[in-house]
Amino acid sequence: MDKRYEQGRELLGAIAGSHAERLIDGLDSMAPGFSESLVAFAFGEICRRPGLELTTRELATIAALAALGSANPQLKLHIGGALRVGCTPTEIVEVLVQIGLYAGIPATLNGLAAAGEVFREQDRHDAPR
Amino acid sequence: MDKRYEQGRELLGAIAGSHAERLIDGLDSMAPGFSESLVAFAFGEICRRPGLELTTRELATIAALAALGSANPQLKLHIGGALRVGCTPTEIVEVLVQIGLYAGIPATLNGLAAAGEVFREQDRHDAPR
Amino acid sequence: MDKRYEQGRELLGAIAGSHAERLIDGLDSMAPGFSESLVAFAFGEICRRPGLELTTRELATIAALAALGSANPQLKLHIGGALRVGCTPTEIVEVLVQIGLYAGIPATLNGLAAAGEVFREQDRHDAPR
Amino acid sequence: MDKRYEQGRELLGAIAGSHAERLIDGLDSMAPGFSESLVAFAFGEICRRPGLELTTRELATIAALAALGSANPQLKLHIGGALRVGCTPTEIVEVLVQIGLYAGIPATLNGLAAAGEVFREQDRHDAPR
Amino acid sequence: MDKRYEQGRELLGAIAGSHAERLIDGLDSMAPGFSESLVAFAFGEICRRPGLELTTRELATIAALAALGSANPQLKLHIGGALRVGCTPTEIVEVLVQIGLYAGIPATLNGLAAAGEVFREQDRHDAPR
Amino acid sequence: MDKRYEQGRELLGAIAGSHAERLIDGLDSMAPGFSESLVAFAFGEICRRPGLELTTRELATIAALAALGSANPQLKLHIGGALRVGCTPTEIVEVLVQIGLYAGIPATLNGLAAAGEVFREQDRHDAPR
Repeated sequence: MDKRYEQGRELLGAIAGSHAERLIDGLDSMAPGFSESLVAFAFGEICRRPGLELTTRELATIAALAALGSANPQLKLHIGGALRVGCTPTEIVEVLVQIGLYAGIPATLNGLAAAGEVFREQDRHDAPR
Repeated sequence: MDKRYEQGRELLGAIAGSHAERLIDGLDSMAPGFSESLVAFAFGEICRRPGLELTTRELATIAALAALGSANPQLKLHIGGALRVGCTPTEIVEVLVQIGLYAGIPATLNGLAAAGEVFREQDRHDAPR
Repeated sequence: MDKRYEQGRELLGAIAGSHAERLIDGLDSMAPGFSESLVAFAFGEICRRPGLELTTRELATIAALAALGSANPQLKLHIGGALRVGCTPTEIVEVLVQIGLYAGIPATLNGLAAAGEVFREQDRHDAPR
Repeated sequence: MDKRYEQGRELLGAIAGSHAERLIDGLDSMAPGFSESLVAFAFGEICRRPGLELTTRELATIAALAALGSANPQLKLHIGGALRVGCTPTEIVEVLVQIGLYAGIPATLNGLAAAGEVFREQDRHDAPR
Repeated sequence: MDKRYEQGRELLGAIAGSHAERLIDGLDSMAPGFSESLVAFAFGEICRRPGLELTTRELATIAALAALGSANPQLKLHIGGALRVGCTPTEIVEVLVQIGLYAGIPATLNGLAAAGEVFREQDRHDAPR
Repeated sequence: MDKRYEQGRELLGAIAGSHAERLIDGLDSMAPGFSESLVAFAFGEICRRPGLELTTRELATIAALAALGSANPQLKLHIGGALRVGCTPTEIVEVLVQIGLYAGIPATLNGLAAAGEVFREQDRHDAPR
């Protein structure tokens, strides 16, 4: 496996946390070889391009996914990812409020519902047991 | 006219430059009173909320508009707006490259074409005459 | 040709005016037989169902097309159609303002621009020569 | 709190019924201050503009939401809202049938499924206990 | 009932299998007469047009539905339909991988998840009991 | 440059004809290095996966692009591409007719308009001079 894949796999792990492995396993069982191509391209090349902070990349990703409105699993994954790479909950919420002007209020409402779910899961994980 | 409108009108001017007046005039001729409500809400309240830099708001707006793919005039206006409030051309380009992963490559290609047009217009304005 | 087609062709004429013939000719040159099926179904059956006024059908059509944002020729045709079947310009404008809450402000702005073009064409046709 | 908010909150209550309070509480816990701005703008200004009946506004809203296809909670809320402000079930059904021509048959099928759920809930509430 | 409907109803059965009857019953309870118009048009006329294999029609349908991203019930129905009319699982998977380039990676991921569900249901039905 | 890029560049040329070079030049002037990543991934890996004919890949691409409705330059490029790799005009037309059932009639009408433009350009090139 080439270096693009290795670097991409590492970045995917940093963004998706424990979801990364399940995502790759799911793809491999359906479309052999696709996850290698995808991870190397998306996370090994595109997301690692210079000129834009990783935190801003994740906020832009959230803006795009919330605007589309039809990719709830990916939206939740990248809301968690934004938190993992250092965005604040407030930044995520404000991106979701902002894009409602352009993609419609339901995009904000449904995005905030997704963010609420992710924030609460995160809290449970962080809480002392 | 209330303070929300005044502050919104000022921010719209900072983002849209010389396009602001034409935009408002166009709306007023079609839907009396709508531009007041809209400017006060969108630019006087939403865009001025704390917790997210104005530059990041503009990049999130570009991400959402490029992902939707059906709002070319607004995409061009906010690419120009992002430049006016201090984003670099590279940040704008990278947001457009990034969102193609989630909204499809045509969103990137058409977004970059729009950005190219705006950058060239900007260059013409900045060039010594 | 069956009665569904005849009634549909008549209703299409009432909605689309002089655009109807050009629309059908364009389809016939590309996809033989499709315009017959389409006109009989869409305008001979669906649009003629009881329980909703034709004016409200046209306003709902405008709401849907403006929300989609990617069907400008059809949006303009049905803005003209709404006027032809008796909707007021104000009703059309207000539908376009209303749907911006749900589909985003660009849907309203681009819809109003389309409406402005149609209203001005209409005015030219109605003016004494 | 200003008059715009008060009038908007009242109209939201008339449209959303018992869902209004939960909606506002959900927003307040995520994005402080946003529900005030939104309710005052959307329901205190836009939905109260003259020139279009409230029933037709709700039908146009349903048309837009069903066409988008990605806002099921809001679609259900406004189907209930249309009933509350006086639209008939048949008008709602016919709007959903109509917009399938322009947004695709799945928009009609999924919209009718949502309407079926709302109508049945309504029936349960209205039934003698 | 006319011949268009009969032929359409037969083709719908061949594509949708046991889902066909439930689909029609659901429509008839909400929008009387609509299923007759729809089946006759969509499956009696459009899907039976010459010049494109039925298998390719189903693959194009899957491509369109996965690209839209907001029609999961219909996507699953036509993934099953593609299998029923003779497409291979690999062809379906590859269509879903292909369209991600143009509609975004979430369209591929969510499409593959839907395909996985349909393939597993199919396996259960085919397994000896 | 690696083999993936070389094979991808060749396939892009086979699909896009004389548009390929202009497309790459346009990207290189805006987002350095992006065209290499994209061509290697999209045309060197995804489009070359086994299990689906290239002609069917192009028809699925047309189905997805026409359904989205917001990517006219890419739709025209792939209509030309489908012809170049061996699809018939009738297959392209029928894909565009088919997807209208699922993405709405405007997707078919605007897709057929794009196809008509491409077919006429093609005819001019093929005509004896």
